[in-house]
Amino acid sequence: MTDCAACSGAWLPVEQRIEDCGLAVAYLAEDQFFPGWTILVLKGHATELFQLSREDRGELMEEVSRLARALSEVFRPRKLNYELLGNQQPHIHWHIIPRLTTDPAPSAAVWTVPHDVVRLSLEEQRMRAASIRSALDAVV
Amino acid sequence: MTDCAACSGAWLPVEQRIEDCGLAVAYLAEDQFFPGWTILVLKGHATELFQLSREDRGELMEEVSRLARALSEVFRPRKLNYELLGNQQPHIHWHIIPRLTTDPAPSAAVWTVPHDVVRLSLEEQRMRAASIRSALDAVV
Repeated sequence: MTDCAACSGAWLPVEQRIEDCGLAVAYLAEDQFFPGWTILVLKGHATELFQLSREDRGELMEEVSRLARALSEVFRPRKLNYELLGNQQPHIHWHIIPRLTTDPAPSAAVWTVPHDVVRLSLEEQRMRAASIRSALDAVV
Repeated sequence: MTDCAACSGAWLPVEQRIEDCGLAVAYLAEDQFFPGWTILVLKGHATELFQLSREDRGELMEEVSRLARALSEVFRPRKLNYELLGNQQPHIHWHIIPRLTTDPAPSAAVWTVPHDVVRLSLEEQRMRAASIRSALDAVV
């Protein structure tokens, strides 16, 4: 799709990249107010789960699950949130969001929680991505 | 889990039930402000995707996809949202939410959209559940 920012590479910057996950790529979210918020972006273009083949859908969800487990190892959250919305960016991408024990609004969806954006320095970003990648590589 | 409302059957009423989907059950959400909002509740108790076997995870996601396709047939949304949160009810359940062309806030997550709860009459509920069930049965 030529008019899709995710397809044209104009969306998430390489600095936020965590790892190549087969048919998708994992990135740190720019806003790390919820520490560990990760976005898994499908490489090919599709907007809905049912547009994928059963095999690709299964493979994608295995990566979502593997990322969730890695985030769980790194951040020890009380819960994880998994969201495929596409309201603003209609290209399949999963938000995987650890909700830590220190979460200011543990019973609410992240979108409703007012907060200042937390942008990491490049070095902090690099270290956080590396810790998630390391946990990811350890997930069997 | 004896203290889990989803496990004890104290959560979603039988009137909202759409269909048995194998290892999960589909219900209409009580609030139908977003028409077709469906909740797919895992029968067994688990809180995170990675606690399921690969086989069960795959089967569950096939049902999520099948429901999304059925909702797409019935409501012709511009986009669907898929959310597994568990912030308030830590028992795996998927929110599958058609975002119609008439949606009042198409670029926002549903949780941020102020609105009065839309409760259907029992007859309306029965008819909506039947239309989704019928589309679901037609999805191969």
